[in-house]
Amino acid sequence: MFYYLNKALKLNKLDALFIDSPQNIFYLTGYKGFSAEEKDAKILITKKRNYLFTDKRYLGELTNLKNFELTEISLFKEILQKNKIKNAGFEESSITFSEYKYFKKIFTNFKPLENPIEKLREIKNQEEIKKIRKACRLSDLGFSFILKQIKENVTENELAAKLEIFLKENHADISFKPIVAFGKNSAVPHHLNSNIKLKKGNIVLIDIGAKIDGYCSDMTRTVFFGSPTLKFKRMYQTVLSAQKVAVEVINKSRLKIKASDVDKAAREYIIQQGYETIPHSLGHGIGIDVHEKPNLSPNSKSILKNGMIFSIEPGIYLNGYGGVRIEDLYLLTNKKLEKITHSTSKIISL
Amino acid sequence: MFYYLNKALKLNKLDALFIDSPQNIFYLTGYKGFSAEEKDAKILITKKRNYLFTDKRYLGELTNLKNFELTEISLFKEILQKNKIKNAGFEESSITFSEYKYFKKIFTNFKPLENPIEKLREIKNQEEIKKIRKACRLSDLGFSFILKQIKENVTENELAAKLEIFLKENHADISFKPIVAFGKNSAVPHHLNSNIKLKKGNIVLIDIGAKIDGYCSDMTRTVFFGSPTLKFKRMYQTVLSAQKVAVEVINKSRLKIKASDVDKAAREYIIQQGYETIPHSLGHGIGIDVHEKPNLSPNSKSILKNGMIFSIEPGIYLNGYGGVRIEDLYLLTNKKLEKITHSTSKIISL
Repeated sequence: MFYYLNKALKLNKLDALFIDSPQNIFYLTGYKGFSAEEKDAKILITKKRNYLFTDKRYLGELTNLKNFELTEISLFKEILQKNKIKNAGFEESSITFSEYKYFKKIFTNFKPLENPIEKLREIKNQEEIKKIRKACRLSDLGFSFILKQIKENVTENELAAKLEIFLKENHADISFKPIVAFGKNSAVPHHLNSNIKLKKGNIVLIDIGAKIDGYCSDMTRTVFFGSPTLKFKRMYQTVLSAQKVAVEVINKSRLKIKASDVDKAAREYIIQQGYETIPHSLGHGIGIDVHEKPNLSPNSKSILKNGMIFSIEPGIYLNGYGGVRIEDLYLLTNKKLEKITHSTSKIISL
Repeated sequence: MFYYLNKALKLNKLDALFIDSPQNIFYLTGYKGFSAEEKDAKILITKKRNYLFTDKRYLGELTNLKNFELTEISLFKEILQKNKIKNAGFEESSITFSEYKYFKKIFTNFKPLENPIEKLREIKNQEEIKKIRKACRLSDLGFSFILKQIKENVTENELAAKLEIFLKENHADISFKPIVAFGKNSAVPHHLNSNIKLKKGNIVLIDIGAKIDGYCSDMTRTVFFGSPTLKFKRMYQTVLSAQKVAVEVINKSRLKIKASDVDKAAREYIIQQGYETIPHSLGHGIGIDVHEKPNLSPNSKSILKNGMIFSIEPGIYLNGYGGVRIEDLYLLTNKKLEKITHSTSKIISL
């Protein structure tokens, strides 16, 4: 990792890489205690040494850092002078304009870079894969658990709260607030849970993610409360087949697998069946962030590679009626997909 | 509010205000469903109309927006042309460099503004005060609840998880991950909870915050597991007195109350008693964010005004031994402080 970053320094003729995204700081240091809102740490990767700058409040906590010299933030300029660091690259998608204004004055040359660390994060190592598998296992258990809580008049908010409590009781965090959508709410891909009550004949869409040791899972299932209508069954089978189409595109590919081609195959399948196109990307990478690279979308430039973990989540949404989304996570190894979420994809009626 | 924003437009000779901070979008629209990470909405405040831009996934959800015209993000440039919007101000602490690069090209003049909305958010209205009071009430209940769970060999992580579950069961969110610190860990102001087990003679520091309807509370108490030592008692009384000193500075003030003066009074009191200075600010405003303006710190330029809600949280931290912090929230009305967290501040030994 540091070898690659040093190469990036040489390539860009930089003395240092300036990292301030909390997720990337966690990725590089393993410490997840910094606040995402307050950006209370900065990293400087130089050719010789790596520094983690933060304030007094954290110094007592971070005594066992590998690969980094822990330094109080007030010494930032001093360290630059001592090491003759004048040209630095920064993360253009993380730094705010006001931080940019401040640090631009400190360096002779302060150069925007496009996701220098996110590119590394796309490919997961064995330890990361293990953590994501654990998070997937827990969302599977969470799904089984919540199925038992689905009954008439329960509200979306109640089910979502129960899911959160279940994850917490199992020593995990949420990777995002669970989405529980009943009936026509399931046609809104980013529905905000409400106090609407479940009625017979409602679709129930559940999108859940656990976070374990800083790594996320993400899975969606759509079930039917009552006896599934033909309309629902047809939507469901179409979505499920679209997912299979996407998986096959990858498994049968012998050349470079373009993420946009995978998106296209599933999208076109759904349109061929007479539905509207998917109003979101087909899938996304996952890891420290619940949405990260690669992107499986029409305009994606990503090439899918071994070691990547991403979702495939086609959906059909009929405004005013309801929606179906089926989302699983897959690990790409030896050019084949391994599904790492294991909840059944058969139609469930309750 | 929009009156004030229109005045800000005139003052800065701007056609529009470009808002992309998810917290400020919640403040202006009341909708909290947008992702904090993905910034999937933008607001444009113009002299005549206000627009909320977002993507298809949200359009079905946001049908009852007051004061805003809901518009698909793909129509952004079209709306600018139609309304002859050329000069816009943006939030320099929210926009990322890559967003800046993109939008700078779209506007003729794209001007950084320092927290245009945060200034409004400093002063809470009655509805906001009500929500924060509710969140405070729940952290009081959470504190009573957790006291009963404190017993030998329980871990920091277990207590923190129980607190989260308690809040969730009471239909609230956390405003931050609860901090539970035993023994010498309590000397680290931003301690990351561990699996260390509670032993007799340990200090127990608990920092909790609930979030209700999008508004936060924040409270810290430090208790003693066993019979409090004289050393602990002296630290505790000093911290408590420092808080009282700060409160009195405000209540006795007849002129403008500078936040930095309040910080100074508490800080100097602690130093006079022979302890080191507080390694953090004395306090912070709170509302949609758990930390917002005003800042009660040595270099703060804030003036405390009626309608503000902020914490006063002095602390003493002895490295290798332990720390004491007492944090309450206060509402400033008629130039007097009303304490809105109600857990006892007396020494608790368990």
